[in-house]
Amino acid sequence: MTDRLHMTKMTWMDYARCTDRPIILPVGSTEQHGPHLPLGVDSIIAENFAALLAQRIDAVVAPTLSYGYKSKPFSGGGPLFPGTIDLNGSTLQALAADILLEFARDGFTRIFLMNAHFENDPFLIEAMDSVNERLGGKATMLLSNWWDPLPEEMLPVLFDETPFPGWALEHAAITETSLMLYFAPELVRTPAISRCENVCPPAYALYPIPADAVPSSGVLASAWSSSAEKGQKIVEAVLPALEKMAREVFNL
Amino acid sequence: MTDRLHMTKMTWMDYARCTDRPIILPVGSTEQHGPHLPLGVDSIIAENFAALLAQRIDAVVAPTLSYGYKSKPFSGGGPLFPGTIDLNGSTLQALAADILLEFARDGFTRIFLMNAHFENDPFLIEAMDSVNERLGGKATMLLSNWWDPLPEEMLPVLFDETPFPGWALEHAAITETSLMLYFAPELVRTPAISRCENVCPPAYALYPIPADAVPSSGVLASAWSSSAEKGQKIVEAVLPALEKMAREVFNL
Amino acid sequence: MTDRLHMTKMTWMDYARCTDRPIILPVGSTEQHGPHLPLGVDSIIAENFAALLAQRIDAVVAPTLSYGYKSKPFSGGGPLFPGTIDLNGSTLQALAADILLEFARDGFTRIFLMNAHFENDPFLIEAMDSVNERLGGKATMLLSNWWDPLPEEMLPVLFDETPFPGWALEHAAITETSLMLYFAPELVRTPAISRCENVCPPAYALYPIPADAVPSSGVLASAWSSSAEKGQKIVEAVLPALEKMAREVFNL
Amino acid sequence: MTDRLHMTKMTWMDYARCTDRPIILPVGSTEQHGPHLPLGVDSIIAENFAALLAQRIDAVVAPTLSYGYKSKPFSGGGPLFPGTIDLNGSTLQALAADILLEFARDGFTRIFLMNAHFENDPFLIEAMDSVNERLGGKATMLLSNWWDPLPEEMLPVLFDETPFPGWALEHAAITETSLMLYFAPELVRTPAISRCENVCPPAYALYPIPADAVPSSGVLASAWSSSAEKGQKIVEAVLPALEKMAREVFNL
Amino acid sequence: MTDRLHMTKMTWMDYARCTDRPIILPVGSTEQHGPHLPLGVDSIIAENFAALLAQRIDAVVAPTLSYGYKSKPFSGGGPLFPGTIDLNGSTLQALAADILLEFARDGFTRIFLMNAHFENDPFLIEAMDSVNERLGGKATMLLSNWWDPLPEEMLPVLFDETPFPGWALEHAAITETSLMLYFAPELVRTPAISRCENVCPPAYALYPIPADAVPSSGVLASAWSSSAEKGQKIVEAVLPALEKMAREVFNL
Amino acid sequence: MTDRLHMTKMTWMDYARCTDRPIILPVGSTEQHGPHLPLGVDSIIAENFAALLAQRIDAVVAPTLSYGYKSKPFSGGGPLFPGTIDLNGSTLQALAADILLEFARDGFTRIFLMNAHFENDPFLIEAMDSVNERLGGKATMLLSNWWDPLPEEMLPVLFDETPFPGWALEHAAITETSLMLYFAPELVRTPAISRCENVCPPAYALYPIPADAVPSSGVLASAWSSSAEKGQKIVEAVLPALEKMAREVFNL
Repeated sequence: MTDRLHMTKMTWMDYARCTDRPIILPVGSTEQHGPHLPLGVDSIIAENFAALLAQRIDAVVAPTLSYGYKSKPFSGGGPLFPGTIDLNGSTLQALAADILLEFARDGFTRIFLMNAHFENDPFLIEAMDSVNERLGGKATMLLSNWWDPLPEEMLPVLFDETPFPGWALEHAAITETSLMLYFAPELVRTPAISRCENVCPPAYALYPIPADAVPSSGVLASAWSSSAEKGQKIVEAVLPALEKMAREVFNL
Repeated sequence: MTDRLHMTKMTWMDYARCTDRPIILPVGSTEQHGPHLPLGVDSIIAENFAALLAQRIDAVVAPTLSYGYKSKPFSGGGPLFPGTIDLNGSTLQALAADILLEFARDGFTRIFLMNAHFENDPFLIEAMDSVNERLGGKATMLLSNWWDPLPEEMLPVLFDETPFPGWALEHAAITETSLMLYFAPELVRTPAISRCENVCPPAYALYPIPADAVPSSGVLASAWSSSAEKGQKIVEAVLPALEKMAREVFNL
Repeated sequence: MTDRLHMTKMTWMDYARCTDRPIILPVGSTEQHGPHLPLGVDSIIAENFAALLAQRIDAVVAPTLSYGYKSKPFSGGGPLFPGTIDLNGSTLQALAADILLEFARDGFTRIFLMNAHFENDPFLIEAMDSVNERLGGKATMLLSNWWDPLPEEMLPVLFDETPFPGWALEHAAITETSLMLYFAPELVRTPAISRCENVCPPAYALYPIPADAVPSSGVLASAWSSSAEKGQKIVEAVLPALEKMAREVFNL
Repeated sequence: MTDRLHMTKMTWMDYARCTDRPIILPVGSTEQHGPHLPLGVDSIIAENFAALLAQRIDAVVAPTLSYGYKSKPFSGGGPLFPGTIDLNGSTLQALAADILLEFARDGFTRIFLMNAHFENDPFLIEAMDSVNERLGGKATMLLSNWWDPLPEEMLPVLFDETPFPGWALEHAAITETSLMLYFAPELVRTPAISRCENVCPPAYALYPIPADAVPSSGVLASAWSSSAEKGQKIVEAVLPALEKMAREVFNL
Repeated sequence: MTDRLHMTKMTWMDYARCTDRPIILPVGSTEQHGPHLPLGVDSIIAENFAALLAQRIDAVVAPTLSYGYKSKPFSGGGPLFPGTIDLNGSTLQALAADILLEFARDGFTRIFLMNAHFENDPFLIEAMDSVNERLGGKATMLLSNWWDPLPEEMLPVLFDETPFPGWALEHAAITETSLMLYFAPELVRTPAISRCENVCPPAYALYPIPADAVPSSGVLASAWSSSAEKGQKIVEAVLPALEKMAREVFNL
Repeated sequence: MTDRLHMTKMTWMDYARCTDRPIILPVGSTEQHGPHLPLGVDSIIAENFAALLAQRIDAVVAPTLSYGYKSKPFSGGGPLFPGTIDLNGSTLQALAADILLEFARDGFTRIFLMNAHFENDPFLIEAMDSVNERLGGKATMLLSNWWDPLPEEMLPVLFDETPFPGWALEHAAITETSLMLYFAPELVRTPAISRCENVCPPAYALYPIPADAVPSSGVLASAWSSSAEKGQKIVEAVLPALEKMAREVFNL
């Protein structure tokens, strides 16, 4: 039986019949996420949101971009950590642009970029901008980070024990850890989660990046009090918002 | 008599004697700022902060980058408005990188990028990153947006009549208008300032950009209640913070 | 318990302890593979060979590159088929180069590119060449297509019913189909496999690509007589050869 | 009251009403100009000619490009001097091209590049060429160096005490010094002007650039006998020629 | 009298009258070819085939590309040998693309790339692909390596004393040496031809390239038994095939 | 017997023994040269000067770059003429840079670029600049246009019947025609030489290039009174100057 969801499992003939459906490109990264989470967190979260959203709006899910733009000290720990694989901005831009253009050439007119790596955002948008110029409006391209549509009233629910550090610092912290406990608990080392102070980022960007810019654990904000239940709450709050967004923008 | 401040007014011999001082590169844009502010707002604000900071830390001010990265709908109105001159990300990155490298080759080891255009940030950082890789630590490069070090306790002072819309939306709004009333009141058309609702930006990026994405005036948040006094308060709050930042990072 | 195999499941601390082991980068594509195989064939095969080889030489497996260089008519059906997502050569080159460089910066000195998409080869090599120039010999980089080390005496075993069409044409044909029947039989539509003539490719490259350059099915050579057993035989012949290659080149 | 001249002082609404007027992009540089002239000479001269021309043809003046292409030893002293900030050719080309394209997208069809830095010329032209290819004739773009239309009969008037060294060598020499004495006398250090021999440039380009290729002062040709009066004469001769050129080419 | 064959000898008026004829771009390289053949072998062979083919199909021959893409160890000896001038892939691609586009702009609709350097192939094809996208089918572009259409039955005739090593290894070996003895015997040092074993290339690409990857002579396969007669046989077998190919594809 | 002069005719072993000699890279173009001269004029002249100079300073001559940067209306007739094959500036720069770097890697420390196409100059210099930065002084690179060292006292001898139009306009005119009558008279159509007025170029660059910018013949200045004798005089005046230049710069 045909897989309706994953492009990678479809034959080209299956796929050719999908072009009036939306297509979702999950974009993650390979990046340190502290002592308790694996390097693939962003890709795993992007894929899971993509698949869940796809089921709601009958979309196709394309293969994930597993490598992302350079991690920054105060949104991911930066290049100081092994396992953080940093693409140049121009590389991510070219990669996303080539793929978006091919989706459009195949006939898709509704393309959703499901991003889960904070730093990817401006370079994905530059890709969308350049592709849009070439397509002249032929396709609608929408980018959402998974946290963008999280209703603000969820924050006190999630951050019941520690203060919300802002989305940049929410790296390997409560939301990502809770999502991983929900999506892939076997990949979380719960004992390695410890209470810690949120990092207090400076009001500037600095090069060379000081070796002690961030804690040696790679954790920017506390993951303490994370739980699969919180992960589920995030998903249940975000998914309808992603669906609503897609339905409005794509006229579904 | 020699101008101690502006590189552009120095002879090369004057300048050659400055290399142990910091050098500040103001980065602005040419971008619509509603019916009451001129296209040069970001460049004017960047230049003014650069000059004031330079006086405090005895720095040299380099010529301003007057064109910036693409304006986005919900941080500047986007490309829909005439007068918004959008550089590609790769162009701004190359421009900044070439200049930073030349400062370092001339012997400067303390370089301050004073940014006043929200969207420039990631591409200036990409330039800093690539230059840093080539310099191997020979120069310290610091980027601050003027609003980054504004103390949070200033927000209720500035936003006493309207809610703070967030920095992305603070475009042609209270802070920029107040700064212009303080720095260059002759360029502000006060009668064109009207009360308006803050724009409520969507939780996504979208292409093609809908023609009605932002109000036809180009104003994203209310400039009502702006004043030269508020401008002065911003300057008086931000400048010491910029100075402190520079002194710490540059060991001054 | 830590996953020894997949980078994506490791924490950065696990990964940091692996740098004296080899690291394998699987490179695939998203490309039509006829009516009986899914679009992800090349990625799936690359990943499986990478994981099996990794177990033999105690290597780490990095996330797969799931999009590859442009499919050509007589090695993959070309751009005429929906579902074939073609990266520009410069994009694949930049992507591979950024990643290789990051592996080397993390301390890896033995990097294996496990390729399963014929057309990727020259652009991956261009990436290796440019990275090598920057590293000055700091890391050894080896690229093998899975079919490269297949012993010639296996050909009559595999092609017992149809003639061997050459590796370029072996697309969605006996070897790929057999490997998929062995690695992921649930993704193969066996009833869609039909006897067919091998395509007879012209002795030139031609643009514009004629719409009828290849059969409308996307099959270039017959997949008839494919079987999981043949797949297993390929794996059992190729794996020791890959291992031998890695041990010799990497001094393991 | 609205500024009719400077784009930077206009609101976007003012600017939007200007698109049937010409727009002038002044292009300068940041470059050593001997012991008597500041680093900003080229930008200052470009801006002044742009503003004066704009008044005659009712044009808009855009923000100046303050950084230019690499200074060459025998047209600007070359990279040996601190304060000479050299852009790569590709950077200047991208910068000019992005801006020209945006002017055209805003509706301008008459674009004048007013250049004052000798070395910029070929890269500005390459930018014009690429933009022209994209616009397909939608806008007329004209580039003039300020010295191009100087009537030959002016040469003996200006070079009454020293021989004319050719335009490449006329760097920090009689014409630029006289123009600065006319436009911005407060920035000229008259006592630092000394009689000197014109440099005799070799008939070749050479790398590495010999450290003693040009006099250590950075002066290539004598500025002796420069005066505000000569500056005025240049302006009075060049301006009508620029106006005539613009009127003819732009059908004004 | 006008030269009908070589573009380089035509006036532009002659050339302008040729646009309904095919145009042939010979592509060679500058690359070591062992102790018996000169560095220009690939260019000389490409030019000769181009001229002979041009006579048969009444085509114009454009100036040869004398520098090619990077030599690889097992198809040309690689970068270890002095005299091998390696272009980056992006350079060859840009060079070929610019020229192809200009031929098409001049009105040619039938363009033949006559290649004689194994490694050029993928980058010439990338150039054709990008030009084709811009031309939208306006011109037909065909690339053939001279050895592509050699009938297989010729192999035993040519390799009567030594085994055929495959086309990659056929470098400075029997076919190239025989062609040079036929086309330009004065450039062949016959005494330097010695019997040798064919190189046995590994099943992978490796960086850094080991210094002893290939024999120190630069010969990959035996040139023993080469002769002008064999060269003539190759030409007599290849030329009609090239002609047939051109007539079919170009509708001549 | 070994050819001492032409790299293309040497084996790699011959060439490897030359690295302490200078190497000359002739750079030409493929460009219209009026009704009396062929498209290859610049390449032919560059090659001839290179070979003659090589004999005087015992240099090696590398294969010619036969395609050059974009022809401009008032130095070559521009892109309006069929047969003018225009490379982008970035392409010529990359091509020259790759080759210069390879010469230096092969051990050459004295590299002479012998240019004969006016428009190539700035892009060749940009290539030299970037290569010089990478080599850090390892090689001396010298570029001369053939006309650069022509003694001024030759002008009245050559321009005895028509005025000297300047070197930019000296295209297909007296000097190039005379050189061709001297170097390759069989390629000159003497009857097609007619008296004509020198073109009077405007004091600006203009896009789109007007269709009638230059005479429809492509001749910018009169070739009348050209002769092989004048060609010989040019050669006899230029060659010693080129030799002197090379000896001084290269310490020969």
